[in-house]
Amino acid sequence: MAATQRGLGSLLAPASVAIVGASDNPDKIGGRPIYYMKRHGYGGRIYPINAQRATVQGETAWARLSDLPDVPDLAIVAVPGEQAVQAVDQCAAMGVGAAIVIAAGFSETGEAGRALQDGMTQRARAAGMRVVGPNSQGMANFGNGAIACFSTMFLEVEPEDGPVAVLSQSGGMSAMMYGLLRQRGIGVRHMHATGNEADVTVAELADAVLDDPDMRAVLLYLESLRDAGQLAAAASKARERGVPLIAVKAGRTPAGSLAAASHTGALANEDRAVQAFFDRHAILRARDPQELARYAELAMRGALPAGRRVVVVSNSGASCVLAADAAHQAGLEVASLAASTQQALAQRLPGFATTDNPVDITAALLSNNGLFGDVLPIIGRDPAADMFVVDIPVAGRGYDVAAFARDTAAFSREAARPVAVVAWQEPVARAFREQGIAVLDDEQQAMGALAALADLRQRWSRTPVNWPARPDAPLPAGSDPFLSEAESLAWLGSQGLPVMPHTLCSDADAAVQAWRAAGTAVAVKACAAQLPHKSEHGLVALGLDSETRVREAVAAQSATLKRLGVRAEGWIVAPMQPALHECALGVNVDPVFGPVVLVGAGGKYVEAMGDVAVLVPPFDEDEVLRRLRSLRIGALLQGVRGEPPADARALAAMAVTLGQAALAAGTTLRSIDINPVRVRADGLGVVAVDALVERAAGSPAG
Amino acid sequence: MAATQRGLGSLLAPASVAIVGASDNPDKIGGRPIYYMKRHGYGGRIYPINAQRATVQGETAWARLSDLPDVPDLAIVAVPGEQAVQAVDQCAAMGVGAAIVIAAGFSETGEAGRALQDGMTQRARAAGMRVVGPNSQGMANFGNGAIACFSTMFLEVEPEDGPVAVLSQSGGMSAMMYGLLRQRGIGVRHMHATGNEADVTVAELADAVLDDPDMRAVLLYLESLRDAGQLAAAASKARERGVPLIAVKAGRTPAGSLAAASHTGALANEDRAVQAFFDRHAILRARDPQELARYAELAMRGALPAGRRVVVVSNSGASCVLAADAAHQAGLEVASLAASTQQALAQRLPGFATTDNPVDITAALLSNNGLFGDVLPIIGRDPAADMFVVDIPVAGRGYDVAAFARDTAAFSREAARPVAVVAWQEPVARAFREQGIAVLDDEQQAMGALAALADLRQRWSRTPVNWPARPDAPLPAGSDPFLSEAESLAWLGSQGLPVMPHTLCSDADAAVQAWRAAGTAVAVKACAAQLPHKSEHGLVALGLDSETRVREAVAAQSATLKRLGVRAEGWIVAPMQPALHECALGVNVDPVFGPVVLVGAGGKYVEAMGDVAVLVPPFDEDEVLRRLRSLRIGALLQGVRGEPPADARALAAMAVTLGQAALAAGTTLRSIDINPVRVRADGLGVVAVDALVERAAGSPAG
Repeated sequence: MAATQRGLGSLLAPASVAIVGASDNPDKIGGRPIYYMKRHGYGGRIYPINAQRATVQGETAWARLSDLPDVPDLAIVAVPGEQAVQAVDQCAAMGVGAAIVIAAGFSETGEAGRALQDGMTQRARAAGMRVVGPNSQGMANFGNGAIACFSTMFLEVEPEDGPVAVLSQSGGMSAMMYGLLRQRGIGVRHMHATGNEADVTVAELADAVLDDPDMRAVLLYLESLRDAGQLAAAASKARERGVPLIAVKAGRTPAGSLAAASHTGALANEDRAVQAFFDRHAILRARDPQELARYAELAMRGALPAGRRVVVVSNSGASCVLAADAAHQAGLEVASLAASTQQALAQRLPGFATTDNPVDITAALLSNNGLFGDVLPIIGRDPAADMFVVDIPVAGRGYDVAAFARDTAAFSREAARPVAVVAWQEPVARAFREQGIAVLDDEQQAMGALAALADLRQRWSRTPVNWPARPDAPLPAGSDPFLSEAESLAWLGSQGLPVMPHTLCSDADAAVQAWRAAGTAVAVKACAAQLPHKSEHGLVALGLDSETRVREAVAAQSATLKRLGVRAEGWIVAPMQPALHECALGVNVDPVFGPVVLVGAGGKYVEAMGDVAVLVPPFDEDEVLRRLRSLRIGALLQGVRGEPPADARALAAMAVTLGQAALAAGTTLRSIDINPVRVRADGLGVVAVDALVERAAGSPAG
Repeated sequence: MAATQRGLGSLLAPASVAIVGASDNPDKIGGRPIYYMKRHGYGGRIYPINAQRATVQGETAWARLSDLPDVPDLAIVAVPGEQAVQAVDQCAAMGVGAAIVIAAGFSETGEAGRALQDGMTQRARAAGMRVVGPNSQGMANFGNGAIACFSTMFLEVEPEDGPVAVLSQSGGMSAMMYGLLRQRGIGVRHMHATGNEADVTVAELADAVLDDPDMRAVLLYLESLRDAGQLAAAASKARERGVPLIAVKAGRTPAGSLAAASHTGALANEDRAVQAFFDRHAILRARDPQELARYAELAMRGALPAGRRVVVVSNSGASCVLAADAAHQAGLEVASLAASTQQALAQRLPGFATTDNPVDITAALLSNNGLFGDVLPIIGRDPAADMFVVDIPVAGRGYDVAAFARDTAAFSREAARPVAVVAWQEPVARAFREQGIAVLDDEQQAMGALAALADLRQRWSRTPVNWPARPDAPLPAGSDPFLSEAESLAWLGSQGLPVMPHTLCSDADAAVQAWRAAGTAVAVKACAAQLPHKSEHGLVALGLDSETRVREAVAAQSATLKRLGVRAEGWIVAPMQPALHECALGVNVDPVFGPVVLVGAGGKYVEAMGDVAVLVPPFDEDEVLRRLRSLRIGALLQGVRGEPPADARALAAMAVTLGQAALAAGTTLRSIDINPVRVRADGLGVVAVDALVERAAGSPAG
């Protein structure tokens, strides 16, 4: 830990920086960092390593690392291939704190490159030196001028220090995010690219920069996520400090995953699990760097929305319509204003204006440039407003845009709720940004960003869930990949899950006896660990209501088993379970995120219909209920067409217990599939009717 | 028709223009058109009407319309309220060809305003004069300088004539669309705003401007659509000429509809019907003016995509991932390149570049500015490419962007397939636009626009469907709003729809006889026009397989009917219909679009699940099948989990027949609901099991 801290300090605030492969040309990779550090007032010592020159960009040059007067805190390794490996080894041996390796040609090129990278990293770690990269564009800290980075972007947009950190696995995206933020007038302190992440990761840097008390937004670009725990820790710190942690995780789709694999060679993440992990840890996900920049601008310009009700004010009725459409689609509410608000507005607005939300002040703005200033405070007093959108699709000659911006800024300070302006004309956008107001290009972007921030605040406001410790509950050992249905149900039952009452019968006589004992129609199912998918083999008979039918079923299934050459453990006989709805529950153990719980519509067509929510533990019943409501079966569970509401809370409780059971199973578990779960009317509970538990590949055999 | 033509000519190419309420101040509403016409070289006569001045902006002024030396072709009425009505009446009496009424305060303000507007319009029509507005920003034709419009936008962006028409019900949106297009470097000839559409509509103008052979894109903003026939005619002309007709139809959502109603007072359209109508007529729908401008730019810069396979080339691996994600999400395919293409690429690219699609040429571009020029022609020869995206997230010092743009433009001419550039840096975007290449801000926008244009081309390529004439088939007269089930099935059967075999039985004895005749289990349903929703009253009994059960069902239903005080026509007895899947078919007669056909998932939860496609007649089976594939049940109908495929073609044929029947029913029909339609395995057909036909309110009573 001490080594880690020292190492990250060497990266974020180095006392001295050596540049291996230093160049006098500020446009070369080995020249840019020196140029930038001098330009941005780096206060530490700069040690160019260059055997050909006495000075580099005005700084004394040193022929070899070993010639330096002291051990540098940080080394930028700007030489290619084998030379880079040698330089890293030398740095490690000298006791350098950290090295940034810019060279490409390591793990992203295949096995040989990966071996080279692993060896280099292991030697550095053994010496206590941290490594950024290889294949990194570098790190830049505008808080102290330590710009160990060769990005072109600092020449394309004017750098400015500010309360934002940009952390990226891709150098190109770090530069692009930086540029997009500066274009929006946002200052950025940290811009770090981790490349192949042989050692230092984006997640670790996120955690570190959150210790900078000036930070107000931390922005990530990820293609592959391996250290979920570290990112969860950073997210928890971000939440404590009220700093939005916003991330692009690319490779969302099969096509994108494939492209990511060939870009970085990294393993693809299951995107539903990524999303569930982000949801769980209140990491706001953006689709791409542009959306991320929009979220960041809005988040930095004011409070996050406390609710979902948006009030729109525009000088165009058509923009009011577009804004209402966009709000609805983003899941925001366009609530009616109070009668008193509307009366007050009517006194200020011309007769043909609209005084309800969205408020159309009409082209009358052209003859009264004070209308925004008149109208906004009135609206601000209405309880229906959690946030505001000022939509100006047309301005220009005759419009006092500077006054609109001043009035809006004054209102924004007063209202202490988010205000977003929609404007596509550059002079209009600039006037508002200069007053510290967030500007979006169109209604869709504005409503999307507001809704995303409302979600984030809502997540922050929820009490973190902690699950009580539970004794380990490994799966019973066995040589088959799957537990039989009887074993599956028994293990789930032992973990407190509601499973259907059933009898495991050894023959037809026992089955008949079980049917009699049930006193109702039963299901008869052959039980064999080797045949996990019984129904595909016709080994499930339902609704049997006579001795003859029970015997026929056992006989038919016996014949099938014989044909398949499988020995059954016996027959499961269980009373038919009446229910309102069939749902399904499941667990997949993800290599990065651990067990994730699935809950959704059940029955035959689970995969084809895909009506499933994914949750990362720990979570509570309320979270499950929220996610169920977002599914298509959500409406059904609430009761439609005169049906009573279903016992969704019991289903949610079952999902929580299932997650806890999965954690207790630890490394012995690979997956669980409970389908159907019969859900009865509210208050009457749920029950697992069929279940299949899968062992992890490496778990102990019986 | 002659009057129409003359009128529209007076609007689009007036020989003389009178301005009622003319002002010497070019920033007043009555001054702007004169200023613009003089600035943009209008060649006709300008007649300012102003009793206070001898000249207005250098033109001879006239005190009254009646003083004019001849009858003007067009009058701009720039005076408010009652004066406007008087001026319009005077113009009509004089024989003016058309008047543009700028004043607000008509139908958008309520009933009194609507009456004023209707009276004015009727008098004008009677005199053969066309009216644009009221509440219109005016019309501008940069082809001949007839700028009868007071928009501020022509002062904010430099006007340029070009092959595009912008037609809008909203003045603000016409100006905004104009500005967005000019910002993208696109010249615009027509910019017309129709306001309240008392007479001339956007649809009519679309038809008219399509006669201008220079037009290459016609762009619409609509809030309320009333003249579907006229728009359909324009769409048909657009398709013949290969001119994309692209429309924003705002008020897509409940919130947006509500805002539109208070904006224009116009009736809301059912959005699913709007979408189906657009689909049917190959009108490309954009979400908002920004998306519309993107579609337009891409459509004008090259051919429409002939397929859905996109090849991406970028200097950033991360952008390749984002582009692949966006392509997948837009429904485009990121196909692998041929081995020969990849070999050829490998010879030009560094070892760590990616030679498959998406092609990552890496930062090597910085040291070889010819890489795009080298690589694009190789990719262009690959059969996997229907379209190309060149993605440049980072450029600047060291990058020869002008060369990239020239190379891309040369490639684009050669390839004759669409090429879109993704660039957010303004100088990069400008360099490409100057070479005639379309530029989008991000991957999402690029892939979305390419996919939309691919859809449009696909729609254009389909043979237009014509349904044969069919004899009128009015519903049987009756006093109830609904036909009984027996009547419903009988009418549908008479129209050629497959309905379940059934017997209408007058009593229990007849029902038992029908059960015996069926030779299998039957359903027994009480049939009464007054009780259209039988199952909610427990008047449906299923799977009856004995005389006792049939008699019990009839008895129980009789008791229920008695309790409800309803007399049944009898009992429908029908054999139970085995099926793979339950679907539903329906018809709603829309006040604007006529009968629209609904097809989708059936059963109890049709409304809650919303898995339904909407089609506007005429359409063919293939169109229904395409739409079914886009539904969630689409996968089920194709066969999942070892089930055979269902007879989706029979369902599609039934949808076509239903549409034809609905047209034959004409004004007697309000709605049809067939649920369930039992769909059997492929080749075994479909059958309507339950049906409910609703009479139109005004149709003849029995």
